[in-house]
Amino acid sequence: MTDFAPSLEKLIDSFARLPSIGRKTAQRLAFYLIGAGDEETEKFISSIREARANLHRCSVCCNLTDDEVCPICSSPERDRSVICVVEDPRDVIAFEKTHEYDGLYHVLHGVISPMNDVDPEDICIKELLVRLNDENIKEVIMATNPTVEGEATSIYISKLIKPLGIKVSRLAYGVPVGADLEYADEFTLIRAIEGRKTI
Amino acid sequence: MTDFAPSLEKLIDSFARLPSIGRKTAQRLAFYLIGAGDEETEKFISSIREARANLHRCSVCCNLTDDEVCPICSSPERDRSVICVVEDPRDVIAFEKTHEYDGLYHVLHGVISPMNDVDPEDICIKELLVRLNDENIKEVIMATNPTVEGEATSIYISKLIKPLGIKVSRLAYGVPVGADLEYADEFTLIRAIEGRKTI
Repeated sequence: MTDFAPSLEKLIDSFARLPSIGRKTAQRLAFYLIGAGDEETEKFISSIREARANLHRCSVCCNLTDDEVCPICSSPERDRSVICVVEDPRDVIAFEKTHEYDGLYHVLHGVISPMNDVDPEDICIKELLVRLNDENIKEVIMATNPTVEGEATSIYISKLIKPLGIKVSRLAYGVPVGADLEYADEFTLIRAIEGRKTI
Repeated sequence: MTDFAPSLEKLIDSFARLPSIGRKTAQRLAFYLIGAGDEETEKFISSIREARANLHRCSVCCNLTDDEVCPICSSPERDRSVICVVEDPRDVIAFEKTHEYDGLYHVLHGVISPMNDVDPEDICIKELLVRLNDENIKEVIMATNPTVEGEATSIYISKLIKPLGIKVSRLAYGVPVGADLEYADEFTLIRAIEGRKTI
């Protein structure tokens, strides 16, 4: 059996190593880039190089930014009394899309996970505590993912913050808007009943 | 609304421009490469550069290869009297996986498609005709895709070959092995009945 040419095989392997890219998709991507123009290919490569060179963590909130301090932390229009703590820069984008929250963020870059050897000092908890000393913060909203590790991280951090006299809250649990109750899992339904509101 | 940092946004756009990569997958890939090691990133980039620099069409069959003549065309073990004509280098791999066909190939790199401005001279038909003069070919198997354009291309090429006194055949149409007849489309069933064999 003959395989692809060695350099093509290597390119396919490179793509297949990326997350969520299977062998078939890797083949399609490889063939696409081989057939693409020089300019397009160089643009693709330089976008990788530039992102890696320019991106770093905001010195305040640890979100990824090209600047020293990210646009949210340096905006005069944000409510500087609230910090929403999230796991990942993508979560910041998710909240920003709501156009409702106008406070600050703090990106942990992970969750505490003994199974994966991630200790509290491996994520940006220290940087959050520094902010609570420096700034005029009234409330911290824990918005880690509703998973076992996300919740454990949330509880761990809230225990560190409470002695500082700052209010700590967490996202409400309940049924997602537009969902079909028939397909909701039991844990979500239990939380939804526990958190029920008078109408 | 705040977006991702500009250089991150640019990297996500680069990935999202690739075929079959949606915005969410592009985000995942971008975050992965930002977090990856320098060595892994450089390896990824050099695999793109190398593939583009080394790969070209085999001077005989037009398949993609790193060599002047591809391993199949230069193999002494292949049957040099049959050429299987396919649209794409991936089709060669598909046939090779069967371990049954031991003839030669010819890769057209596309199909005739007036809708997409692809004329007969835009695909490797000329190179195929040259081979038929030079070599001791007894049969050409048309193995373009069973689509309207694939069939039209197949008929166009067979009309060019027949005057040369070379046998031209095409792949059998029928129900795929292991398929459920209930879900077979009517055209496939018609072809399967037409091509029925005595058992």
